[in-house]
Amino acid sequence: MSHLALAVILAIGAPADDEKAIRGVLDAQVAAWNKGDLAGFMAGYWNSDKLFYISGGKSAQGWKALKERYEKIYQGEGKEMGKLAFSELNVELLSGDAALVRGKWEVTMTKETVGGWFTLIVKKFPVGWKVTHDHTSK
Amino acid sequence: MSHLALAVILAIGAPADDEKAIRGVLDAQVAAWNKGDLAGFMAGYWNSDKLFYISGGKSAQGWKALKERYEKIYQGEGKEMGKLAFSELNVELLSGDAALVRGKWEVTMTKETVGGWFTLIVKKFPVGWKVTHDHTSK
Repeated sequence: MSHLALAVILAIGAPADDEKAIRGVLDAQVAAWNKGDLAGFMAGYWNSDKLFYISGGKSAQGWKALKERYEKIYQGEGKEMGKLAFSELNVELLSGDAALVRGKWEVTMTKETVGGWFTLIVKKFPVGWKVTHDHTSK
Repeated sequence: MSHLALAVILAIGAPADDEKAIRGVLDAQVAAWNKGDLAGFMAGYWNSDKLFYISGGKSAQGWKALKERYEKIYQGEGKEMGKLAFSELNVELLSGDAALVRGKWEVTMTKETVGGWFTLIVKKFPVGWKVTHDHTSK
């Protein structure tokens, strides 16, 4: 292996490590959600005004707008967060610092279970991988 | 500018050209759809068994499966393709050969108008940019 190739691998990290780190972020989000810890769940998202979220035919831009949306839907009067689970996760690295994640989500609440698919773009920042784009649908 | 930097730019192309090419693929899809040319519309998708499509709570994998889905929904008995329009398009290059596209879609038919958001991943192939992942929702 040339020194240049080795330097590139050292700089961008091994793909397997990246996928493991990305799955770790999602696992942490699920664990936080299931403890009712919305702040912990939100830590998986890019804390930026450019974060983009699409769900239920509507979009929200910015970390604060998304947090308010989650609070309204899951923490309002008579609402519950329920139990969140992801399945059929697929992580595809698109570059050394961006990946596409698709999967199924399901939230089991007392009276109903809702679920569907999600498409995420995650990017690598100095603080780690964060979700920068989330398209969730039922 | 160093020779290396120049070589990298020549190899991956200028970002503005990539965005223009990606928008060109979407424009061609809309034009094809509005002529009732489903084959032309499908030409914007990666012709692969790995193409992934999410819509209406369901997923379809592979170019053929997606084509059959469109034929069933828009070309079946009593169905119509209507007029397709995209808006609020945003193209974000993630690397030299991958980009995230988000936008709104609307199909105007004789009796109703349907629409929502989409999230696409497009990748650069020798034949040009193609959609490899499509998450469309109402």
